[in-house]
Amino acid sequence: MDRQHGSVIWFMGLSGAGKTTTARHVAAELLQQGRNVELLDGDELRETICKGLGFSREERIENIKRIVYLAKLLSRNSVDVLVSAITPYQEMRDYARSELPGFVEIYVQCPIGECERRDVKGLYAKARNGDLRHFTGVSDPFEVPQSPDIVIDTASASLQDNSEAVIGWLHANLRFMHAAQRA
Amino acid sequence: MDRQHGSVIWFMGLSGAGKTTTARHVAAELLQQGRNVELLDGDELRETICKGLGFSREERIENIKRIVYLAKLLSRNSVDVLVSAITPYQEMRDYARSELPGFVEIYVQCPIGECERRDVKGLYAKARNGDLRHFTGVSDPFEVPQSPDIVIDTASASLQDNSEAVIGWLHANLRFMHAAQRA
Repeated sequence: MDRQHGSVIWFMGLSGAGKTTTARHVAAELLQQGRNVELLDGDELRETICKGLGFSREERIENIKRIVYLAKLLSRNSVDVLVSAITPYQEMRDYARSELPGFVEIYVQCPIGECERRDVKGLYAKARNGDLRHFTGVSDPFEVPQSPDIVIDTASASLQDNSEAVIGWLHANLRFMHAAQRA
Repeated sequence: MDRQHGSVIWFMGLSGAGKTTTARHVAAELLQQGRNVELLDGDELRETICKGLGFSREERIENIKRIVYLAKLLSRNSVDVLVSAITPYQEMRDYARSELPGFVEIYVQCPIGECERRDVKGLYAKARNGDLRHFTGVSDPFEVPQSPDIVIDTASASLQDNSEAVIGWLHANLRFMHAAQRA
């Protein structure tokens, strides 16, 4: 049996930027291509393997380390892993890249004004009221990614276009995609 | 691509009973048979996804929940998962069985006197001295498994014999093993 390596396609950006929405769309497309796919959602992981971790710099780094650990176990068993997590510090991205052979860094760009206008989970309002401390973009930094593989913008482009851009990049850059197509 | 389900072969028993040793031996055999295998060691997981959890009843249950979560993600992606963890309460085993389609419960039996004589990690000595609280078998209960699929005894049987017993059971009881042999 082939133990082919999967990719780890990591969507990072502000809360409300559209990370999970885009990741779900890309995941559905990869599934349709017959690949093994898991989507790891940062919010959901905070209820499972990251339960109890807060939002200090140290805890955020521990949070990302656990996601990397999980992504590593899955990807080395032929699973394409999509991660949706704010991942606010450059140090985290460098760590993920160093640990994960199939790492693909996607910066999901969106002006904070637009994220705040959407405010799907009502978190920006809470952060502005002071009810949420350490909130990325408001009271905690988001360091702009220094060397993302792909940048998408969810304010100026559609979900469809962004997903196609990601899939197109994967096809062009990852040998595994071609292998899967040939099979 | 086939998304075949893997097994979750769960080794439970006292500290020093030989859970990890047996699991490693079985894992090597499954690997040789060309399967995707991951061994999740309870001690190691306490340094990663279970970091910071203590040994109260509540924290032990949370610890097992996280291992189940990880085993589920892997096994549904065709990975055979071997777990090595004390798993002292029946409630945990019932939970694991209810969550994991390919669950196989192995009770690694060994008299506590023999575990204590081995005391590979020096933990029994610490527990007897009172330097370790909530230590299974000394100051925390180990409930004898009510319905294990396999029982092995590491005091009276050799590692080789026990591993063969496990592999033999898997071959006889799990359809997937035959499927793999035919492939």
